[in-house]
Amino acid sequence: MMLLPNHLSGRWTSGTGTGSVLRDPVLGTELVRVDATGLDLPAGFAFARTQGAAALRELTYRARGELLAAIAKVLQANRDAYYEIATANSGTVKGDSAVDIDGAIYTLGTYAKLASTLGDRKYLFDGDATSLAKDGTFQSRHFLVPTRGLALFINAFNFPSWGLWEKAAPALLSGVPVVVKPATSTAWLTQRMVKDVVDAGVLPAGALSVVCGSSAGLLDALEPFDVLSFTGSAETAATIRSHPAVAQRSVRTNIEADSLNSAILLPGEDATSPAFDLFVKEVAREMTVKAGQKCTAIRRAFVPESLYDATAAALNARLGKTTVGNPRNETVRMGSLVSRAQLQSVRDGIAALRQEAQLLHDGDTHGLVDADPGVACCVGPTLFGVRDGDAAHIVHEREVFGPVATLVPFRSVEHAVSLVRRGQGSLVSSLYGSDPAALADTAIELADSHGRVHVISPDVASSQTGHGNVMPQSMHGGPGRAGGGEELGGLRALNFYHRRAAIQAGSAVLAALAG
Amino acid sequence: MMLLPNHLSGRWTSGTGTGSVLRDPVLGTELVRVDATGLDLPAGFAFARTQGAAALRELTYRARGELLAAIAKVLQANRDAYYEIATANSGTVKGDSAVDIDGAIYTLGTYAKLASTLGDRKYLFDGDATSLAKDGTFQSRHFLVPTRGLALFINAFNFPSWGLWEKAAPALLSGVPVVVKPATSTAWLTQRMVKDVVDAGVLPAGALSVVCGSSAGLLDALEPFDVLSFTGSAETAATIRSHPAVAQRSVRTNIEADSLNSAILLPGEDATSPAFDLFVKEVAREMTVKAGQKCTAIRRAFVPESLYDATAAALNARLGKTTVGNPRNETVRMGSLVSRAQLQSVRDGIAALRQEAQLLHDGDTHGLVDADPGVACCVGPTLFGVRDGDAAHIVHEREVFGPVATLVPFRSVEHAVSLVRRGQGSLVSSLYGSDPAALADTAIELADSHGRVHVISPDVASSQTGHGNVMPQSMHGGPGRAGGGEELGGLRALNFYHRRAAIQAGSAVLAALAG
Repeated sequence: MMLLPNHLSGRWTSGTGTGSVLRDPVLGTELVRVDATGLDLPAGFAFARTQGAAALRELTYRARGELLAAIAKVLQANRDAYYEIATANSGTVKGDSAVDIDGAIYTLGTYAKLASTLGDRKYLFDGDATSLAKDGTFQSRHFLVPTRGLALFINAFNFPSWGLWEKAAPALLSGVPVVVKPATSTAWLTQRMVKDVVDAGVLPAGALSVVCGSSAGLLDALEPFDVLSFTGSAETAATIRSHPAVAQRSVRTNIEADSLNSAILLPGEDATSPAFDLFVKEVAREMTVKAGQKCTAIRRAFVPESLYDATAAALNARLGKTTVGNPRNETVRMGSLVSRAQLQSVRDGIAALRQEAQLLHDGDTHGLVDADPGVACCVGPTLFGVRDGDAAHIVHEREVFGPVATLVPFRSVEHAVSLVRRGQGSLVSSLYGSDPAALADTAIELADSHGRVHVISPDVASSQTGHGNVMPQSMHGGPGRAGGGEELGGLRALNFYHRRAAIQAGSAVLAALAG
Repeated sequence: MMLLPNHLSGRWTSGTGTGSVLRDPVLGTELVRVDATGLDLPAGFAFARTQGAAALRELTYRARGELLAAIAKVLQANRDAYYEIATANSGTVKGDSAVDIDGAIYTLGTYAKLASTLGDRKYLFDGDATSLAKDGTFQSRHFLVPTRGLALFINAFNFPSWGLWEKAAPALLSGVPVVVKPATSTAWLTQRMVKDVVDAGVLPAGALSVVCGSSAGLLDALEPFDVLSFTGSAETAATIRSHPAVAQRSVRTNIEADSLNSAILLPGEDATSPAFDLFVKEVAREMTVKAGQKCTAIRRAFVPESLYDATAAALNARLGKTTVGNPRNETVRMGSLVSRAQLQSVRDGIAALRQEAQLLHDGDTHGLVDADPGVACCVGPTLFGVRDGDAAHIVHEREVFGPVATLVPFRSVEHAVSLVRRGQGSLVSSLYGSDPAALADTAIELADSHGRVHVISPDVASSQTGHGNVMPQSMHGGPGRAGGGEELGGLRALNFYHRRAAIQAGSAVLAALAG
């Protein structure tokens, strides 16, 4: 079975151990192996910091933007291969693979366009100069300059493509080389994309590296000016934050962890309202897209008490139509989870929710299409309901990373907001209604505990971008339980890869830097 | 001996233990006691989060700015008492007490003025709206809203006044209540200022609390939406970063730790140049102000090889004139360190530097004025020199927190920059020269490893604000060894106390939020 090589120190190197086997989660077959045994990580990181970073920093933002466009072109040319890998290794239907693959290409393209607004410069201004002297001869101006280190991405299994490129686009645009360590179970697509881009020769040597397999030693090799971006569990996040690289060497860290995202149907609607319909459609879609394996997926759906039964019925009807199974069968709407481990984790989560919630739609009633239930990592969409959201705990605290959500009734908007806050900080909450003032008030009320609030009203029914879709123009991240990170948000993403400094000087010196 | 009460839960509470004694570091006499035993920290923090935060968030930025102006007025009215406490507890001469006390009042005043530019709002805009749909009907806009928690400050002994208010000004302006834990050895001034402000009734209950003594339990009481700002040693910083509040609960943290700041005299000057003179004056001033107990003080002074001897001679002559001893004697220019522990730490540092550096000016040659060398925590200004900066280690790695600096020659600007970088990230570097282009090039080259670069040329000799003075208009902080924090920088400081969120919505909803 093919052993995927790692790319480090500007060359392809296979691990010397037995490695880990990647499987088809639907068929159970073995696909490829990955292994990182024997890699000289400190040397590889040093190569990225010296060769890769120096070459990138020699370029202007505009030129780096052209690199991103070139990467997008390479990925576009190899798109069919990526869809095949996604089907085989992630078990996703075409539309779900698109979120990962085409989402990445779109994000790269967005940053390529943003780059041209930064012009032929090698550093950025952060505001105008401020006078520090009464006569104005001595001033302070803030600048943003690329950090002189590398960016290490420790990524999650659910977005092997988008997870790499949504981080790499702002990093490379900032002049910072990238080392990506994809989650092992779906590492193939990440490795293949890096391979295509490296082989196409569009990037300087050392600008893009990939290490597949164990993450042992990666953090040990980090130095003070490196940055670390992690997407994964809150448990691993805590380990990362306590590592000497972060705790002692001040390595800047961005973390995206667990999130109990929510959707709220505001009061004032009934079961015949367009907003009710939009709510039901979005909740069902978020539960089933990528089999619920999106960090942004709706986990908690809040409705006015009077609409609880009607919503349960509407969701039940919609979820019942979801065909589950082998993504190669064109009648299948929802594929599988990525691994047996994830299947077990979701089953455990469902068992836990059963302790405090009522089953409103039983995923086990979905027979699998073209898939062996004893082999395939498939689980049907599962809707729970709790009548008393205040008394419930698990629904607010446990992220079940599959097609699972819970319906919760509320008495008032204030009550809904207090229940949403029980999530202790989330990536996204979506609001549904038809009164702009009420939607605005609730949106700003939720802003402190969410990285994004997505507002769906009938007037934007056809133009809204989806609760769970991460648009590169908007910030992605969330406080508290969600990890406290900030990604994307257009050019805001560049902050993480730059260092801010105030230069205090006379006007002649500042004029020389403004040129 | 007076036991200073703590202020928590909106009331004054004395610790129930024996506490710690604060001393006069010059006379050795006992002054007051502090103690935090028996405080109900979780209840006190909850009071701040509910009562204090709610009252502050009810106000607009403009109204909160008026609170800052009112605080400044209270401090101004009690200024004489603060100078007396500083003399007694910090052992500082008047000019050095001013840096701490008047520096705080100036910073509060600056933020009071900045507040009026934010207007009658309760949240801030972060950029304009961006269209997410081709027809422009669905848009994304980023907002900054106050975090719904408290701000805990764990502060250093060297700035009991400024260290509190430079952090509290942006926190309170942001609508976030403050709990300050001053360093025990100089806690008196912090406690007294909080007492005066609380007693004056200018702040809502719960907006400002002070806990003096042990920091035990403070971090345990933090919740996910609280923020923590720490100034102190890199060792304590590592412990804080590994604490469950930070590692598991994602408490946002700002850290300012050790810093090996530098000054560089650029090539092209000689010993008769105005820039040479400015360099010598600034290095000597930075070594002696507050007896070198400033996190921004110059620790490493870099000069072209050809000027090494001339610089050593000029600094030697200038330092020789520094009278050291009891700050109550008006002929004394430099007072004492804050404690016997700090005296021992500085002596240990001097002993360590002696291993690799030559003593160019021996602090022990300074007799003490009106002070008993067996009692007073005084140490004379001490200048070291290393001929080979590349071979040296301690000079680049050990922050000796007293009137101690090391002179290092360099061969070229590139060489100087490489030596400066050995500090692994610092708060500030200052450049001296007369060629604006060369100064600009070096300043931007150093921007990635410093929070601030201060450029002194003859044309700004009388208007420049000083290498070590932290102006509220400029960012204060530094990457790597310096902790990675960002404070001040005008309105940039508000970011730490706000949460950023993207609101994606139709134009009617975003219009309602723009009002």
